Amino acid sequence: MRSDRLGETLLPKRLALPIFASDALSSVAYAPDEILLTLGVAGGAFATTHSWQVTLGVIAVMVVVVASYRQNVHAYPSGGGDYEVATVNLGPKAGLTVASALLVDYVLTVAVSISSGVANAATVLDFVRGREVIVAVVLIALLTAMNLRGVRESGRAFAVPVYAFMLGIIGMGLYGLVQHLTGTLPAAESGSLTLVPEGSQELTGFAAFFLILRAFSSGSAALTGVEAISNGVPAFRKPKSHNAATTLLMMGTLSVVMLSSIIALSHWTGVKIADDPSRQLLRNGVPVGDSYVQDTTIGQLATTVFANFPIGIAFVSIVTGLILILAANTAFNGFPVLASILARDGYLPRQLHTRGDRLAFSNGILILSGAAIVLVIVFRASVTALIQLYIVGVFVSFTTSQIGMIRHWTRHLRLERDAKVRHRMQRSRIINSIGAVMSGTVLVVVLITKFQAGARYAIAAMIVLYVLMLGIKRHYNRVQTELAVDWESDRPILPSHVHAIVCVSKIHKPTLRALAYARASRPSFLEAVTVDVDPEETRELLAEWARHDIPVPLKVLASPYRQITRPILDYVRSIRSDSPRDVVTVYLPEYVLGKWWEQLLHNQSALRLKARLLFTPGVMVVSVPWQLASSAGAERAWIDEPPISGSVRGGGR
Amino acid sequence: MRSDRLGETLLPKRLALPIFASDALSSVAYAPDEILLTLGVAGGAFATTHSWQVTLGVIAVMVVVVASYRQNVHAYPSGGGDYEVATVNLGPKAGLTVASALLVDYVLTVAVSISSGVANAATVLDFVRGREVIVAVVLIALLTAMNLRGVRESGRAFAVPVYAFMLGIIGMGLYGLVQHLTGTLPAAESGSLTLVPEGSQELTGFAAFFLILRAFSSGSAALTGVEAISNGVPAFRKPKSHNAATTLLMMGTLSVVMLSSIIALSHWTGVKIADDPSRQLLRNGVPVGDSYVQDTTIGQLATTVFANFPIGIAFVSIVTGLILILAANTAFNGFPVLASILARDGYLPRQLHTRGDRLAFSNGILILSGAAIVLVIVFRASVTALIQLYIVGVFVSFTTSQIGMIRHWTRHLRLERDAKVRHRMQRSRIINSIGAVMSGTVLVVVLITKFQAGARYAIAAMIVLYVLMLGIKRHYNRVQTELAVDWESDRPILPSHVHAIVCVSKIHKPTLRALAYARASRPSFLEAVTVDVDPEETRELLAEWARHDIPVPLKVLASPYRQITRPILDYVRSIRSDSPRDVVTVYLPEYVLGKWWEQLLHNQSALRLKARLLFTPGVMVVSVPWQLASSAGAERAWIDEPPISGSVRGGGR
Repeated sequence: MRSDRLGETLLPKRLALPIFASDALSSVAYAPDEILLTLGVAGGAFATTHSWQVTLGVIAVMVVVVASYRQNVHAYPSGGGDYEVATVNLGPKAGLTVASALLVDYVLTVAVSISSGVANAATVLDFVRGREVIVAVVLIALLTAMNLRGVRESGRAFAVPVYAFMLGIIGMGLYGLVQHLTGTLPAAESGSLTLVPEGSQELTGFAAFFLILRAFSSGSAALTGVEAISNGVPAFRKPKSHNAATTLLMMGTLSVVMLSSIIALSHWTGVKIADDPSRQLLRNGVPVGDSYVQDTTIGQLATTVFANFPIGIAFVSIVTGLILILAANTAFNGFPVLASILARDGYLPRQLHTRGDRLAFSNGILILSGAAIVLVIVFRASVTALIQLYIVGVFVSFTTSQIGMIRHWTRHLRLERDAKVRHRMQRSRIINSIGAVMSGTVLVVVLITKFQAGARYAIAAMIVLYVLMLGIKRHYNRVQTELAVDWESDRPILPSHVHAIVCVSKIHKPTLRALAYARASRPSFLEAVTVDVDPEETRELLAEWARHDIPVPLKVLASPYRQITRPILDYVRSIRSDSPRDVVTVYLPEYVLGKWWEQLLHNQSALRLKARLLFTPGVMVVSVPWQLASSAGAERAWIDEPPISGSVRGGGR
Repeated sequence: MRSDRLGETLLPKRLALPIFASDALSSVAYAPDEILLTLGVAGGAFATTHSWQVTLGVIAVMVVVVASYRQNVHAYPSGGGDYEVATVNLGPKAGLTVASALLVDYVLTVAVSISSGVANAATVLDFVRGREVIVAVVLIALLTAMNLRGVRESGRAFAVPVYAFMLGIIGMGLYGLVQHLTGTLPAAESGSLTLVPEGSQELTGFAAFFLILRAFSSGSAALTGVEAISNGVPAFRKPKSHNAATTLLMMGTLSVVMLSSIIALSHWTGVKIADDPSRQLLRNGVPVGDSYVQDTTIGQLATTVFANFPIGIAFVSIVTGLILILAANTAFNGFPVLASILARDGYLPRQLHTRGDRLAFSNGILILSGAAIVLVIVFRASVTALIQLYIVGVFVSFTTSQIGMIRHWTRHLRLERDAKVRHRMQRSRIINSIGAVMSGTVLVVVLITKFQAGARYAIAAMIVLYVLMLGIKRHYNRVQTELAVDWESDRPILPSHVHAIVCVSKIHKPTLRALAYARASRPSFLEAVTVDVDPEETRELLAEWARHDIPVPLKVLASPYRQITRPILDYVRSIRSDSPRDVVTVYLPEYVLGKWWEQLLHNQSALRLKARLLFTPGVMVVSVPWQLASSAGAERAWIDEPPISGSVRGGGR
């Protein structure tokens, strides 16, 4: 997208909602399962009693987080991502912590969303069952290919499945409610089964409390993606902040409604989700065994509610699968954007920054999908296993960002004199403080309940990223210091003479062109050099040189060990030590070919020579290309890629 | 080794024998096993009756092949390898056929020798048993590391284990003979067992004949490596040909003696080798079962002959293992040499040719060991399985070479008038004809008996290599034609002006150096250019430029899509189209750092820009390096590698 046209594509709320909310809304596809499954460890009765408590807890956090981010949206109309908020208000180390957490979370978003999508697809697509891992890997590969090719989904492409998903879930909720009120709602397939505790008895006291906390931690997955809108403020139509805050509220409301619908329906239909279904679920007192197939909660609910309306079942399953894939896709946009911002700030290799270049984004996309595929394979596409690693990062980011917001308001309050504005700021600061305390508490709960179960791997990954990025930053700083010009002493001295050397192995067009260009540059001294590896060939070369009256002297360098690079290096150094104020220019003819494998067959000596010459001070290396016929057209493939525009999400501004 | 000192290290026969013969002699460590095992398929009685016939057949072929190669040695005192003989006398396609066969055979030499070495080691080293594959892979990895590091074994290091092996085998034979004559030779451990046929009954008629032929094919493994001496003639002391021919005769005699000793001892001690020992070997009529451990023939013989002299057992086992490792090592010398010769002739990427450069040899060594490791893993380090792929290549090479030799003599006979010389040539031609017929026959026998069992894989590999190498050759030829200078029309025109551009992103030492060097080169036009990706940064750059009075105009290129490469390319092309007779010189400041990972963090934009500029005609790209502090010392690591000298063996001269 052209910089000067970026402003033309501002989003109305009805498009902004699906674009920014797919990640957050999609989590209702797996959060209820994880709540029910975790509580089910202590048996069916326990799950029924406590699932509402846990859901209310999640909703409470959701309300607070949404309220808090509405403050972010107003404070940073430029789109203050968590990374930016943390960096500006709490310093670069806090920013880097958030960035590490977000990078890890993007990978988990892909892994969890795709795994959940595959599990949901299995409800209607039988062949997926038992092949979840491979299907998930193939889906990630397809997403990767789409994003590498640069297929940019328009807002509309996003809008249809997201609204369809809302329609499906809320429609199912309403239809179920009607059936429930009229007493026609059947029991779920698993409703007639008994869910026994994993241990032999129900838990009590502290163990029960701990289990409830774990269920709450898993349920907090419903909050992932809430921060997306706060990154995307600049993409909204004016008044940007206001519209973004409204959209955020809509998203929060929708999440709460959908989550509550699913939990309510589960209660009414008696859906049972077990960690180990074959042994924990009893039919008439006997375990159902390995042949039992446990569908996802949404799958079971759709089958029950739409028992007489199979199109409804298919619709809900398909849109659930679609929105989960969209959610994964948001990470494919967000990860490279965040990587680009981190690269701009010197925490990642600078080449990840260049916006206009597809290559930069390609690297980010490949790293993301590679990591997600590894996770899916290692955790066998199990949402329950992956969710143990998730959430930590989200709440590290939430908490840091909210603490940053408190600082933000405190700083601004110091300067602000207008009582009305001060009042608003103080109110915002209170909301952000509640947000910080709340998300900090959730973070602690998540850490305590999930550290052993998997969160430690996510934390380890964050620490590795943190250290790595800090190391890169330090390296760049060191280099910058070393390269800084001290204008007192560093005024460069112009070399007195240019001593040019053309490297020749045989006489052909590239050599003649290199000689012509070297002559056109009119150096102070010019000679051609060749290395005498094979005396026979050297004799022939000299004879041909003389025969054609080439107007440049040809010098033969001895090579007692039949090396090529070394004699040239030694010769260049001898020139340098004879006249240290001169600069030596080495002309290397290079072939340009069309195919990469053709490149492998050529230029290797030149490349090696160049790599070594660059270490010698006072030397310039000139590549004189000769374009072979096969190179025509190949350059178009290199350059004429469509320019890219990063969509806004992630930790960025 | 310095070219002018290569002559000083000529080998006396006593050193040449172990250096060139380790491969050929080592095959007596597995050839007898394969003869006995193959015949044993038809039962113990069949094996006893026919193993002498098969051995005599192998010896007959050995005598003919040795006699034939003595002619090669005299005809090509420069060391005419099979590749050279075939190319010169039968044309490049025949040469390429031999080369493909030899490359495949080098890989198999490593795989077979190491697998056999491991099997022999298992006789005395219990922990090896059951871990043959991993031990073999580790050994190959160690050999690879040694050869990559360039540890050059001296002649003496070779001599000791080879002579020790001869001493061990012949000593064991003599000691066994004495015991046999005095009636004190005990039966082998497997002597008391009955070897039953794999089918229920002994074979007769054609099936029996076919089995004998198969055993003969496997036994022909004893001939691998015979050609080595013919490649090494230049390394002999004068009279080179005469000494080489004598050494060849010694080697043949030793092979025959050792092979006969082992087969004779096997007869006397009743050694039984079964394809499927647990079921084919009966003890008192009952199969020995899976707990039975089948040692190699040499292992069983040593245990029997040196029953009261355990040091003898250890000695024979150790020297057998050592010579097999040495045999594998010859392939590590031969493969890169042959690859280098093929690269010289344009059949492999040219960079494999450069002799003085360790890198060229490293690539060859890595390809060889990678392929050998794959074979060892796929065939589970089983000599019996691997031997089915072996030998084909050897006899393709033998046969082609001998046919080439017939042509050689015929050609020379046309010119030769001296009757005595003509007589000698005619005699040589008869010997080579017999050699060609004999090795051709063996080749047909090997193809018929082994095609299905595995030879087809080896043949497929040869065909793939053949096609690949032909494709590379054609590519090089096409390029050569395209680059050839037509002196009538191609006299290059000197460009009228040099238009120089220095690419600038910020002002630091590398930029200043690039500007200084560009100014020193005194181009017709000189300007600095920067791409306006971020207006803020561009403004700062312009201000700094003005403040420091940099005496080169700075041009800002617009970049509406925030690309870097494209605007520069477009600008360069606009210059070219305005003044097509000028040449454009693009100066790129480059950082030089010490570590490869540091390089990853820099120069990526410059590299990308350069890669694309090279496609544009009329452009030179100048790298102006800035050496950072960390680069000091790193260059030494790049360059100060000891020069390499290829040892002589393989298809080359």
